[in-house]
Amino acid sequence: MKTIFSPGPSQLYFTVEDHTRHAFKHGIPSLSHRSKSFEKFYQHTQEHLRALLNIPPSHHIFFSSSATEIWERLIQNLVIEKSSHFVNGAFSEKFYKVSLQLHKQAELIQVEDGKGFHEVPELNTELIAVTHNETSTGVTVPCDFIYALKEKNPRSLLCVDAVSSLPNANFDYTKVDSVYFSVQKGFGMPPGLGVWIVNEACIAKSEELLSAGYSIGTHHNLPSYLANGKKNQTPETPNSVAIYVLGKVAEDMLRRGIEHIRKETVYKSVILYQELARHEKLIPFVKEKAFQSPTVIVAETNGYTKALSDYLDSHGMEAGEGYGSHKGNQLRFANFPAHSKEQYELLVDSLRSF
Amino acid sequence: MKTIFSPGPSQLYFTVEDHTRHAFKHGIPSLSHRSKSFEKFYQHTQEHLRALLNIPPSHHIFFSSSATEIWERLIQNLVIEKSSHFVNGAFSEKFYKVSLQLHKQAELIQVEDGKGFHEVPELNTELIAVTHNETSTGVTVPCDFIYALKEKNPRSLLCVDAVSSLPNANFDYTKVDSVYFSVQKGFGMPPGLGVWIVNEACIAKSEELLSAGYSIGTHHNLPSYLANGKKNQTPETPNSVAIYVLGKVAEDMLRRGIEHIRKETVYKSVILYQELARHEKLIPFVKEKAFQSPTVIVAETNGYTKALSDYLDSHGMEAGEGYGSHKGNQLRFANFPAHSKEQYELLVDSLRSF
Repeated sequence: MKTIFSPGPSQLYFTVEDHTRHAFKHGIPSLSHRSKSFEKFYQHTQEHLRALLNIPPSHHIFFSSSATEIWERLIQNLVIEKSSHFVNGAFSEKFYKVSLQLHKQAELIQVEDGKGFHEVPELNTELIAVTHNETSTGVTVPCDFIYALKEKNPRSLLCVDAVSSLPNANFDYTKVDSVYFSVQKGFGMPPGLGVWIVNEACIAKSEELLSAGYSIGTHHNLPSYLANGKKNQTPETPNSVAIYVLGKVAEDMLRRGIEHIRKETVYKSVILYQELARHEKLIPFVKEKAFQSPTVIVAETNGYTKALSDYLDSHGMEAGEGYGSHKGNQLRFANFPAHSKEQYELLVDSLRSF
Repeated sequence: MKTIFSPGPSQLYFTVEDHTRHAFKHGIPSLSHRSKSFEKFYQHTQEHLRALLNIPPSHHIFFSSSATEIWERLIQNLVIEKSSHFVNGAFSEKFYKVSLQLHKQAELIQVEDGKGFHEVPELNTELIAVTHNETSTGVTVPCDFIYALKEKNPRSLLCVDAVSSLPNANFDYTKVDSVYFSVQKGFGMPPGLGVWIVNEACIAKSEELLSAGYSIGTHHNLPSYLANGKKNQTPETPNSVAIYVLGKVAEDMLRRGIEHIRKETVYKSVILYQELARHEKLIPFVKEKAFQSPTVIVAETNGYTKALSDYLDSHGMEAGEGYGSHKGNQLRFANFPAHSKEQYELLVDSLRSF
């Protein structure tokens, strides 16, 4: 089977299929989500995810159906009037539009696709939305910038889209209020589960909205998540197989060592960016080194899109298409824990011989 | 492995594990939801579900993460001021509360748990919510009652919760505006996917709300579903494996014959209700025959709950607990296509020998 470099859904993590088979063998799909057995593996997933990502006790972990859903829940639960959005690609822009759809005053802080943010503004806002890794363009927002944003805007809730950056991103969670992702990127799972990490300030804000008479949604509002989460349960019948498998994958990654995974991620990104820098036909889309994402690497293909895509395909590799308006001019390469060093070396060799 | 009679998550349909394995083998988990291959199996699922349930072209089929989510989407998309709810158990009551949480004027038409509705009222309302099969109490609302409701209230949108009644329920879709369910009941799949069937009147109402300046939610609003559905796509990265497997299960059920499945459902329900009627220790919770659900059969256990549950367990069968306040006084038995005649005969024999 081909190696999938599309940035999500992407290559499955090595152990996902086995864990899924195990889930079926042990009756996980038929378990009531109010049963002791469910509570046990829910807790296992919580604990191993917490250990893997180093999430402190100040932050809760809740499950949604997708990161797309979490955009909606963030605005419903945390915003009365205004949110501010750092937009540098399609996904950060979608979140901005979600806020508008929910009739909030959404502030746009935008730079061109492929560019990063330089200035840390003072914002008079309830929620600041930053996309740590723009999956559409391969631009990263450095953690220092994110922490500086919080320092300059201590009363705003800082919410970080880490969809294609976790588990590689090593956040200091004490400096952010919410982080969220979906499992079909860095965790190498089938799509259908989002993970929403929130601190007490988020919980307090949602309770404040509720007390003041605002609607904060229904089953997936934060007080409902919290009340059920305390019992190791979910508000509704969830994608239980995915919750189970996520815990097992987190356990596997812990065993392999998260530092080791992160070092490999750096190695793989360095050899690919080096190859793009010296390549005759390709150039990296993101020019400034500080903003080059280590986990989603985007190449401008200068008319060679189809030829390169076909060439890689014939060598057993599937590149991701450029996103939206960049389709046809770019190819994207995910660099997730599911992509081995050997697969990346083969990718780089193939680009060189192209 | 034990036969699971809990009404959901429940016994897996015979072919689900194989189809899941096949999905992994063919790379479904890593497929982009904007790819041709995705569109192909999305269409396959649509067509086979449509054929199985006899859904006319006037109705669209959309995918959510759960029926619980669909409650929220129904109110967001279809109600400006008022919804009316027929409540006779925990799940119909939850939907009523969803409407209140979204700040609508929710009208309650309530009978005691275990009882049915006799009167067809004239209602001045935008949305009428009926639960075809109350999973918590085993009460069914006969289709004739549902159709009469629509006839008496032609300007209200009639929305039918068919969570634990499909694929057994044989609806005349021309007489209802929306029907919804989740796949972990009658379709015998792992939880994590809801199916939302809506007609053009629902689409028109959501567009009317949008034009008039109301917020109708974000990615899972009806215009967004419609725009993506026309391309055989979903608004967000969905639980694609579940969409794939659902299509395969629908195909299997079509091959087996839906009439055959429905006849077997009747046979199984008749032998269980007969046994409950003549049993010395047990009685059916729902007394009036017209309201006895064929797909979720609830027994009052008169102090024998634990003894019976343990007895069945020792014979390789898992009964469902009573729901909510009925826990401890009742046991529930799902009668889904995944439960064979032989398994039901064994269940009935075991109840007799208890």
